Amino acid sequence: MTIRQVTCTAPVNIAVVKYWGKRDSDLILPTNSSLSVTLSQDDLHSRTTISIASQFTSDRMWLNGIECPIPTNQRLVNCLAGARQQRQDMESRNPRLPKWSTWGIHIASENNFPTAAGLASSASGYACLVFTLAQVLELPLTPSELSRYARLGSGSACRSIMGGFVGWEMGQRADGADSLAYQVAPETHWPDLEALILVVSDAKKGTSSTSGMQTTVNTSDLTQHRFANVVPERMRQMEAAIQAKDFPTFAELTMRDSNQFHATCLDTYPPIFYMNDTSRAVVNVITAINRLDAGIQAAYTFDAGPNAVIYAPKAHMPRLLLLMAYFFPGAASSADQTFEYFTNPYNAVPKGAALGKDFPAEFLAIKDQFDPSPRGSVKRIIHTRVGDGPRVLKNPESSLLNNQGLPKSLRA
Amino acid sequence: MTIRQVTCTAPVNIAVVKYWGKRDSDLILPTNSSLSVTLSQDDLHSRTTISIASQFTSDRMWLNGIECPIPTNQRLVNCLAGARQQRQDMESRNPRLPKWSTWGIHIASENNFPTAAGLASSASGYACLVFTLAQVLELPLTPSELSRYARLGSGSACRSIMGGFVGWEMGQRADGADSLAYQVAPETHWPDLEALILVVSDAKKGTSSTSGMQTTVNTSDLTQHRFANVVPERMRQMEAAIQAKDFPTFAELTMRDSNQFHATCLDTYPPIFYMNDTSRAVVNVITAINRLDAGIQAAYTFDAGPNAVIYAPKAHMPRLLLLMAYFFPGAASSADQTFEYFTNPYNAVPKGAALGKDFPAEFLAIKDQFDPSPRGSVKRIIHTRVGDGPRVLKNPESSLLNNQGLPKSLRA
Repeated sequence: MTIRQVTCTAPVNIAVVKYWGKRDSDLILPTNSSLSVTLSQDDLHSRTTISIASQFTSDRMWLNGIECPIPTNQRLVNCLAGARQQRQDMESRNPRLPKWSTWGIHIASENNFPTAAGLASSASGYACLVFTLAQVLELPLTPSELSRYARLGSGSACRSIMGGFVGWEMGQRADGADSLAYQVAPETHWPDLEALILVVSDAKKGTSSTSGMQTTVNTSDLTQHRFANVVPERMRQMEAAIQAKDFPTFAELTMRDSNQFHATCLDTYPPIFYMNDTSRAVVNVITAINRLDAGIQAAYTFDAGPNAVIYAPKAHMPRLLLLMAYFFPGAASSADQTFEYFTNPYNAVPKGAALGKDFPAEFLAIKDQFDPSPRGSVKRIIHTRVGDGPRVLKNPESSLLNNQGLPKSLRA
Repeated sequence: MTIRQVTCTAPVNIAVVKYWGKRDSDLILPTNSSLSVTLSQDDLHSRTTISIASQFTSDRMWLNGIECPIPTNQRLVNCLAGARQQRQDMESRNPRLPKWSTWGIHIASENNFPTAAGLASSASGYACLVFTLAQVLELPLTPSELSRYARLGSGSACRSIMGGFVGWEMGQRADGADSLAYQVAPETHWPDLEALILVVSDAKKGTSSTSGMQTTVNTSDLTQHRFANVVPERMRQMEAAIQAKDFPTFAELTMRDSNQFHATCLDTYPPIFYMNDTSRAVVNVITAINRLDAGIQAAYTFDAGPNAVIYAPKAHMPRLLLLMAYFFPGAASSADQTFEYFTNPYNAVPKGAALGKDFPAEFLAIKDQFDPSPRGSVKRIIHTRVGDGPRVLKNPESSLLNNQGLPKSLRA
């Protein structure tokens, strides 16, 4: 059997100017421009293998080892149809090209972070899908053109097509041709910026972002004001802060935008809550340290869930890590569970410090302002940094599909 | 010793269109009009006794039995000076009037609800103070004129000067002469409307409303939109809903306005949180029952704290009470503590029902949507209704001061 196979990874991105609302639900055209930071694939990524073969009788997909019916997922159908159509156009113009547009497609995809962690996987997942599709079908697309396909799968996926600092221009056209991602600055621009992800425990899954954002657009008076009068200027300020590597301005804009996004969720009718008491405790701790004489040292941001992402300069990370581990200790204090609680590839914990016990000297002034949250309120802390865009993996070992185009490992 | 003494009570009010922001902090002139429901003094009130005598060498005040220095409280100083000035003007015009404006003033005030309950006491407290002052000095003031003095003590106090449904017109004048309360409808207008107050446990006192509201005005973009574009129309709609006794409209406007007030708090920089996980659970339960076929049966609203006030028609109260007691059970289930947990002067608990155990049949469809909150998340439930404005108490037993103008009971 002649089979073509490509495996890629794509990164997670965390917005600092939030996307929340569509002006067109089919084409996934947003009500405002947005901007995000691409996080390192060394720590968090989706991985996708796509095999195409003329012998495949139908398109099939496995997600985290479980087969998913493609036809029920209209967004996925749209992604595949768009890529195939483009390949077919190429083949029509150049008859010597192989007719890959007629072949069946097998897709296997998984995340290296637990879905239960509550980290948005649709952005990295769809970015990886369309990036891999473009590779396997040899579509001659620029990253910006590719972002348009990714957007059709999941809006924020368009920003995971590039590394560094990525904007998504809302665009004006009805067909979405100008609603594209663009790179504000590459991952090498501001290597000093790092991130902590606090995975917060939450009993139940909240409102899905797809239905939630449309209810906000339809019912919140405040969000209309945000779209028209706040975001355009904030995008300009944020891009300038990133270009200038001006952390205090970047941080204030990031925190204000997260607050305002959650404010419009609360102004929705009925209201939508994503932050819980632990999220609010994170905000209060960061606010308290930013009020100390040293000025703004960290910025929190929250997506559509209770998890906190904290951006900070590398130099501040050691004390921030100790601070977070003190106020948000893991479920168990035993050394066995330390890895479960804490992923720290960049060795930011100061030598000899006891995570969850030692309080950083620089922040002693705020120690008695708050009680630590109950053990296990934060399930896991991941330390990461700014990263590059999707990667092609050359090593055959990294493939999720075997040479028959079937998953190497399946789950019941 | 010639002594004049008057004792009065004044009610609590809970806003359905929220006041949050001053355009003048000295005169307490608000950035938007607001509207509240006056709750029954039979259940919750402030009580104030004022004695005046020529022999009193200074003004003195006792709050809940503890003496408080008057000069350090500028708002109280303003209230006393305003009332004295008005009395003095009367005495100048009519020399036969006794010169009470020159006498010393002794004030004793207390609330019949624990301060620890977190219910706003400044509104009922200042309303009672100025109402009692006007009585003891025989100031010929209409309720609307009186509301102006109350406003100088605490903005929302102006709405506790009247019973029923009370608006506070923000006014336009710099001297505040047109920033007055007015009665939208008296307490007899809609006797079917009742209220439940859920006193929510919270570890710490949040941001004070005085400093919080100014930070919101100064930093929230969204609140400027609320002032200019949302509240004026909402005031008209709310007054119309009250006049028509249209509960579903009243309820939706009340919930939307509470949500938007807390949204602007969250849009403040740094953000202000008043609602906690228990507050959010109340919102989710009320939202779920309002989605049932029977339509909107209850409205939640939250002031500057985690406590919920639930407005509902009398006919819905028995099942709402059972519902709330089930999802928000008291700290202890023993009969001994029932009264601590639950104050029910209107006998709304159905005969034979077990508070905290029986689930109302009408709401069974939502029983499994939520887990009950931990025991004691709600400390107390108070069942009350719409009430009248301040009252003069004629029985000398009700006085808080003895015939020497000193407190009958003192606390260490």
